[in-house]
Amino acid sequence: MGGDHGLVVTIPAALAFARREPDAEILLVGRQPQIEAQIVGATDIRHRIEIVNADEVVAMDEPPAQALRGKRNSSMRVAVNLIKEGRADVAVSAGNTGALMAISRFVLKTLDGIDRPAIASALPNQKGGATTMLDLGANVDSSAEHLLQFAVLGSALVSALEAKDRPTIGLLNIGEEVIKGNEIVKQAAELLRASRLNFYGNVEGNDIFKGTTDVVVCDGFVGNVALKASEGVALMLAGMIREEFTRGPISRLLAALAYPVLARFKRRMDHRRYNGAALLGLRGIVIKSHGSADAYAFEHALRRGFEAARHRLLDRTISAMQPIADQLSRMKSSAPAAPVDQAQRDSAEAS
Amino acid sequence: MGGDHGLVVTIPAALAFARREPDAEILLVGRQPQIEAQIVGATDIRHRIEIVNADEVVAMDEPPAQALRGKRNSSMRVAVNLIKEGRADVAVSAGNTGALMAISRFVLKTLDGIDRPAIASALPNQKGGATTMLDLGANVDSSAEHLLQFAVLGSALVSALEAKDRPTIGLLNIGEEVIKGNEIVKQAAELLRASRLNFYGNVEGNDIFKGTTDVVVCDGFVGNVALKASEGVALMLAGMIREEFTRGPISRLLAALAYPVLARFKRRMDHRRYNGAALLGLRGIVIKSHGSADAYAFEHALRRGFEAARHRLLDRTISAMQPIADQLSRMKSSAPAAPVDQAQRDSAEAS
Repeated sequence: MGGDHGLVVTIPAALAFARREPDAEILLVGRQPQIEAQIVGATDIRHRIEIVNADEVVAMDEPPAQALRGKRNSSMRVAVNLIKEGRADVAVSAGNTGALMAISRFVLKTLDGIDRPAIASALPNQKGGATTMLDLGANVDSSAEHLLQFAVLGSALVSALEAKDRPTIGLLNIGEEVIKGNEIVKQAAELLRASRLNFYGNVEGNDIFKGTTDVVVCDGFVGNVALKASEGVALMLAGMIREEFTRGPISRLLAALAYPVLARFKRRMDHRRYNGAALLGLRGIVIKSHGSADAYAFEHALRRGFEAARHRLLDRTISAMQPIADQLSRMKSSAPAAPVDQAQRDSAEAS
Repeated sequence: MGGDHGLVVTIPAALAFARREPDAEILLVGRQPQIEAQIVGATDIRHRIEIVNADEVVAMDEPPAQALRGKRNSSMRVAVNLIKEGRADVAVSAGNTGALMAISRFVLKTLDGIDRPAIASALPNQKGGATTMLDLGANVDSSAEHLLQFAVLGSALVSALEAKDRPTIGLLNIGEEVIKGNEIVKQAAELLRASRLNFYGNVEGNDIFKGTTDVVVCDGFVGNVALKASEGVALMLAGMIREEFTRGPISRLLAALAYPVLARFKRRMDHRRYNGAALLGLRGIVIKSHGSADAYAFEHALRRGFEAARHRLLDRTISAMQPIADQLSRMKSSAPAAPVDQAQRDSAEAS
């Protein structure tokens, strides 16, 4: 039901995905009569589609706490419940991110050893591949241990989706020019170095798009700002190209001539192919599509969820987490408790 | 002497700037014989050029503390000293940023009411203007009061360079989708709202390039990552365009035909026009050019320094700071001292 466009985007995308992927079974969660009206023509795949009724809808601008407490029969809540009940492997939503995170966390709970879930997304890089970055805004003021956990989550996601055995991990930091480093990042680097993860070392903002590492780990505040700044630059540049190629009749003619080249470029920078952020660290796979996604973009989000489940993302995360949990508990038993860290965790639990 | 290329860039840029700007008087600081060899032909402007000898040079990768303590006759140190002695209004360097910051801070000291200097730079925006962003990496773990001070510094810079009376200030934050806000940013928003600055409110990463506000204020860690991520995206996209237009003979022909359009686009996204970051909050104006700057870019850095001095940046900063200092001291007298903040300031002083 969610996203800026609702069923007119999500249903056609789901039908297209089901046709392309004969192993997929789709549970469409929302207002049954509206959904039924949208799938009338899909007789060829109707046997792999089930409608699960949910009367309420979380609004895009609704406060997460209100969505969580006030709408127990929202399509979002019912969809996430399906994972908990074992009826679904993945939930995909284009709805309100905060509400989806709050509901997923409340219903599914975090995996053992994970204090906080994180949001991860793939971004295109110069190498022609993708860099997976997290956290993109689920957490602010992450501790060093949280950053280590994010690294485990990101590593498991890349190994599931891209069939890489030991994805490289970069820790987002700032360059030599800075007067002082950030203490939490320094501590996180030590934890990562001591872990069994494939830790590359510190990376800087430009390394995200260079593709220096498979995974880039950072606090959610930093990640969210970097992501949106990057989107802002890309939009600005695309706008400038458009302006220059429409500035007059000659420019327009040249644009028409250069169309095949510009179209290839446009396709390469098409963010829709990267749609589908993963909410990681939960006892279930939840994928968040961009609210403004069209059917093409939403199908990509479905694809990411499907592949994550098919390649056993949760099992991978749990196995990768085991040595990390051991590492952290060894540290804890050999060092006095860090009061700031405990306070952070308490406030996170209380939220 | 500094930068990746040294005198072959800085001297031609300085000569070109002096020719373009008849009011400018230039002090060239560095190894006198080398400098003299570079300016032999400049007889037309020689009377406005003075060479100030300095035997030592700070290396690009030298630790700031070593440059500060070990090289008291470096060109950087001598140039900044010229400001202190009242012989220069501005120092411009393409050298080691950390060393330039450490030397400038040590020699010049901060202005009254400013705890820490900040690095500010102009970034192009969709509106065809520039957004001034700070801090870009001089500080990490900035307190709410520091962010308020950065706002004063950025506001004064824009009012000096762009003849805007009351520049709008945006506070960099993350979107609605986040579960929890960042406490320091929330406090900073309150301080900004209570100040006499033209505070717009929170902005997100994409607003930098939308040009939503004249100034965007953030912690140096976040600012540095956002800046470098943005540079990374721009480089990636420029590389993709180049690849697509050189992919085969037809694409190359189209590129040749579309050359005037592509050249206009290239000029608009030319980061050299934005070269010259300002080290703000000091008792003197110091401008940092990109180390890789060519003569065209370095001349832009000289221009920024010249305009900042001509439009009395320091006086503007001092007058803007007065009401802020009053605001903060009123707050202090009506509230108990914040211990964390004091510890941060102490450790900053010690560094």
